[in-house]
Amino acid sequence: MTELSCNDFLGGKVRVWQPVNGYRAGLDPVLLAASVQAKPGQSALELGCGVGVASLCLAWRVPGVAVTGLELQPEYADLARRNAVENGADFTVHTGDLRALPEAVRQRQFDHVLANPPYFLRDAGTGAADPGRDLALGGDTPLATWVEVAAKRCAPRGTVTFIQRVERVPELLSAMYTRLGSIELLPLIPREGRPPQLVLIRGRKNGRAPFRMLPGLLVHPGENHRDGGEDYTPELRAVQRDGAALPF
Amino acid sequence: MTELSCNDFLGGKVRVWQPVNGYRAGLDPVLLAASVQAKPGQSALELGCGVGVASLCLAWRVPGVAVTGLELQPEYADLARRNAVENGADFTVHTGDLRALPEAVRQRQFDHVLANPPYFLRDAGTGAADPGRDLALGGDTPLATWVEVAAKRCAPRGTVTFIQRVERVPELLSAMYTRLGSIELLPLIPREGRPPQLVLIRGRKNGRAPFRMLPGLLVHPGENHRDGGEDYTPELRAVQRDGAALPF
Repeated sequence: MTELSCNDFLGGKVRVWQPVNGYRAGLDPVLLAASVQAKPGQSALELGCGVGVASLCLAWRVPGVAVTGLELQPEYADLARRNAVENGADFTVHTGDLRALPEAVRQRQFDHVLANPPYFLRDAGTGAADPGRDLALGGDTPLATWVEVAAKRCAPRGTVTFIQRVERVPELLSAMYTRLGSIELLPLIPREGRPPQLVLIRGRKNGRAPFRMLPGLLVHPGENHRDGGEDYTPELRAVQRDGAALPF
Repeated sequence: MTELSCNDFLGGKVRVWQPVNGYRAGLDPVLLAASVQAKPGQSALELGCGVGVASLCLAWRVPGVAVTGLELQPEYADLARRNAVENGADFTVHTGDLRALPEAVRQRQFDHVLANPPYFLRDAGTGAADPGRDLALGGDTPLATWVEVAAKRCAPRGTVTFIQRVERVPELLSAMYTRLGSIELLPLIPREGRPPQLVLIRGRKNGRAPFRMLPGLLVHPGENHRDGGEDYTPELRAVQRDGAALPF
């Protein structure tokens, strides 16, 4: 791994080192973290934490939450550890594969499990030029395995939250609804009247409420991108700049 | 089966006999029929057609479509046949179980398959007082079986369209995405800002496009029910009163 950049998240409240040419975190892990309704004293596990953006945003927003991260790629896991230290976050990172969990993770359950799994199936795409970015964007672990591991590591009444592309909702829901209950889907609407491209999906271990689809959350105001400057709805700006929770 | 009433659909363009105390068709089969993009000369199969509201609305909207219905309950199937005759519709009704299709249905494929399966699992609810209504509301055939039969009876490149309650979207999608492609989900939003309670889901046999969620279709305008009079958005009124197609 070569050149690194240090980037601001939550308006600079979280600062994160990440490879310039590798997989670079954007808004998605920020939204994922904002949607986890953790309380001080609780624990959280992020599967596939990368350099730790979602975990660090969660740790910043809810002090007193002990966050654990699992990352397959050693270079990203090392950066996540460095980011944990530099942000003074209660964030412990394990290097490992979710199909063969490290002992420290396998022997525990967590109040909240979160994940931003690769958006594409590795065999479906052309692959990115950078191998680390390639793996982060298009993993070879089926979504059903992510859900299975997340559900097993989730404590009774705890939550499992994923952010994922709309394309993979059938696969994700189909894996979730046999293992979790009280599933809720929040579509992220890029602009008024447009179809969602991303969704947040949350299930509860042992939850018994029926599946719900929530009204979509609008990301950008207006019909077109405004030149220059920021372009988020007030609700999204509060999440992205101020580190607010996302009502989900 | 005892007392019958004759009710108007599509502003009286379709008139349907149905039992006063049994399962009574509402807006749902009208929306289902409106969402099937059939062309003259094509064929359509409705699984669980009841007294035939969806099939008759489709036959009215697209003259030249040959519609076949399958209905488990003989009294409803008889009414569907009577309704076909009285509406002068090209609508043939078979009495039978989708788990043991009549020969005439099993040996064919159709350009479009549609269904408005029971909304509740029979063992989950308390059951309605009327046994016919009971079966129509809460069947004991799993949704996966409805989807499996629909997909098998659908011709290559044909469509399978279901209307169903949001609660059962995970079950429905999970059955659909392994058997059909190009799946699209249209949430029906009761009023602005409310979560959808019903969805239309369509898949295409041998379709290869990724799953899409469309922006929700608003059913009622405003935030509250207006006293007296009709209370549909113009788009819905066109479907419900004028027999227009639903843009899906």
